[in-house]
Amino acid sequence: MPASPANDPTLRSWIDIRPTDDFPIQNLPFGVMETPEWGPRVAVAIGGYALDLYACAQLGFFDSIAEDVPALGAALPKVFRRRSLNAFLRLGPLAWRAVRERVSELLRHDNPTLRDNELAVRTCLLRQRDVAMLRPVKPTNYVDFYSSLEHATNVGAMFRPDKPLLPNWRHLPIAYHGRANSIVVSGTDVRRPQGQYRPAGQETPVFGPTQQLDFELETAFVVGRGTAQGTAVPIAQAEDHIFGLLLFNDWSARDIQSWEYQPLGPFLGKNFASSVSPWVVTLDALEPFRVAGPVQEPPPLPYLQTASDQHFDIQLEVLIQPAGSTVAPLVISHTSTKHLYWSMAQQLAHHASNGCPLDAGDLYASGTISGPTPGSLGSLLELTQRGTQPLLLPNDLQLGFLRDGDTVILRGYAEKNGLRIGLGEVRGTVLPAAE
Amino acid sequence: MPASPANDPTLRSWIDIRPTDDFPIQNLPFGVMETPEWGPRVAVAIGGYALDLYACAQLGFFDSIAEDVPALGAALPKVFRRRSLNAFLRLGPLAWRAVRERVSELLRHDNPTLRDNELAVRTCLLRQRDVAMLRPVKPTNYVDFYSSLEHATNVGAMFRPDKPLLPNWRHLPIAYHGRANSIVVSGTDVRRPQGQYRPAGQETPVFGPTQQLDFELETAFVVGRGTAQGTAVPIAQAEDHIFGLLLFNDWSARDIQSWEYQPLGPFLGKNFASSVSPWVVTLDALEPFRVAGPVQEPPPLPYLQTASDQHFDIQLEVLIQPAGSTVAPLVISHTSTKHLYWSMAQQLAHHASNGCPLDAGDLYASGTISGPTPGSLGSLLELTQRGTQPLLLPNDLQLGFLRDGDTVILRGYAEKNGLRIGLGEVRGTVLPAAE
Repeated sequence: MPASPANDPTLRSWIDIRPTDDFPIQNLPFGVMETPEWGPRVAVAIGGYALDLYACAQLGFFDSIAEDVPALGAALPKVFRRRSLNAFLRLGPLAWRAVRERVSELLRHDNPTLRDNELAVRTCLLRQRDVAMLRPVKPTNYVDFYSSLEHATNVGAMFRPDKPLLPNWRHLPIAYHGRANSIVVSGTDVRRPQGQYRPAGQETPVFGPTQQLDFELETAFVVGRGTAQGTAVPIAQAEDHIFGLLLFNDWSARDIQSWEYQPLGPFLGKNFASSVSPWVVTLDALEPFRVAGPVQEPPPLPYLQTASDQHFDIQLEVLIQPAGSTVAPLVISHTSTKHLYWSMAQQLAHHASNGCPLDAGDLYASGTISGPTPGSLGSLLELTQRGTQPLLLPNDLQLGFLRDGDTVILRGYAEKNGLRIGLGEVRGTVLPAAE
Repeated sequence: MPASPANDPTLRSWIDIRPTDDFPIQNLPFGVMETPEWGPRVAVAIGGYALDLYACAQLGFFDSIAEDVPALGAALPKVFRRRSLNAFLRLGPLAWRAVRERVSELLRHDNPTLRDNELAVRTCLLRQRDVAMLRPVKPTNYVDFYSSLEHATNVGAMFRPDKPLLPNWRHLPIAYHGRANSIVVSGTDVRRPQGQYRPAGQETPVFGPTQQLDFELETAFVVGRGTAQGTAVPIAQAEDHIFGLLLFNDWSARDIQSWEYQPLGPFLGKNFASSVSPWVVTLDALEPFRVAGPVQEPPPLPYLQTASDQHFDIQLEVLIQPAGSTVAPLVISHTSTKHLYWSMAQQLAHHASNGCPLDAGDLYASGTISGPTPGSLGSLLELTQRGTQPLLLPNDLQLGFLRDGDTVILRGYAEKNGLRIGLGEVRGTVLPAAE
């Protein structure tokens, strides 16, 4: 598709935005905010503000595009007064693009429509710090891939030293179904799960709070356009079904996971909670950051072969704010989505190849993203060699696995030629296990 | 809880019911029907009829219980004009029991309220053959267990001859998350999936229609009362969260499954479709069929220990109507849910033990149910030793895995002292792979 006019790197907004901000006028990610007075509202992030799309629609700011996109026109304004983006996503790519481009127009420095309407600005533009962000989608299904070669090799070497990378791994993007209803938005505390695990050296398992709580650094794509059961998606069309991306922390209890996972995969070691960032950055906004992926050898089967660049270079960071610490969060890992072996298009085409239906709002996470160097690993499992080599933090603190009170923050942004498109952050603090 | 008055084995209805019928007055399962004229309606099965609960509510037949159960009163009648039972389930156990017991009263041979009101009978009582049954719940989550010792041992021996039963199996009910949005109601055709698999003796995989399409004989319980994230469920209270049971066919593509499943479990080999029976039989109705489960050795950890009988003896049959055949479907397997090693209460308590939230409408399937004898195996994988020993059917037909046009029918019923409580059936016909 042609580049969106909303991506023009020369655009400037009448809203003041710092160069290090994640949400310049070229980004315009979608989320759902809530205020006690007004309830849930679909919003777009711009700098430190959130633009209330329901208020914009009520004030007639979308009337011009409603005529061009009848499905959107019929759904306005109420599609923007929902607790999730799902209804908006079901309107389809024409609607998403029309809204993003119209919002871009409204926010341009030389457009007086909104800028000079003081009452409208007061109504539509809220400071992000004054609103609560909700989980942006209600996922009907959640899938977690395993698409980082480095992560799969690192973890495989711990669990199966004889065969770290299984024979199927380079032929298909391995994945499993996760739990959709335990996904929470950034800022939600996560309670340390209890569960069954077998302590090292013991024959029989015990039940209690996990001793090996971990994070996983991931991104996830949000399905926009769904499919009917029995319908495959050719890989050249796979991206048409992707609305955008967010950050994803797939909290994991390693002791529970390693005891339960054979032969049917992860279950209670994962499904107690996953955390997502509140703003979904559209694939359109990430267009300038396409890169070629790693060389795939052996070449995949034809249904997974792509002609164009379908990887993206998004910088990712993991930060830890240790329990009780008042210093700034510490970066403990830095990597990029460009290291992923399988692209989102390959993941989606593979998933749909057997006719499994896709729904608007589905979340497809990448799996832990680890790079090739020690400082680019996406989990404590890898960073600490299963807890045996703790990270040394200031004040003589050693971090093996997560302790109660620790806060984990994932951040992501793409940057090129002075343009920065950020994913924002996802954070969560560990609460003690239930009594 | 005390036995429901609706379970009284001496009850008779003014509707004519044959002794071999699945739906006598002691059963009263819930489902969702649809007619072109009236749209979706929650219904209760009685003999060959479906009782329209929306019409009953409109005619005031639930007014007497609406006072006792305010949540129900507030939701009537519209809770019965939905496309799924989910909203009804969210009203809680008091509402489910009050409705079942009131329906039982209305259908008793000596109660003239409905019986002698010809106009009401015409409005409320439809022949099942005149209505379309919908999927009874919209599952927000679907989990598949692996709780038959015989099935786990049989399959383990094929995939891992060196260690058929893994060390964790007798300590916890192994399970994985499946795909919720590809679950279809009985009668829906199932398209043969395509996928990636590695033919025997080859080094590299191919992509194409599965050559090893199979069924799996399962039951599934429907969650009624949900839980909040972070909350465990003590095993003594686990059944309070279960609304009822249905039949479940977990269609499986064995070649795709065996190539993809390591290390994260089944994915595309399963998620193209699963089929459910349309009527959910309440746990209340199954109360007379409780039995002690198998002796569990070693004894499970305390959070999985039960004092009372929490297994049920439900007879299960698999029938095949081969493609092109006009003879009656052939029974190829017969077993019982009593063979399951782990009970539903243990499954639910285990799942909730880490704080993973449960939602009304969630489906938890048993995993393939196989008994101890050759005629009691719950999949073609086991019945034919992975296709190497085909079943011999009439007319010199050999059945290895499923062929296009084959119809699979699962039936289930509990029977004791002349009382038969049936689950009905779930059926599906295999369509050829997409072009």
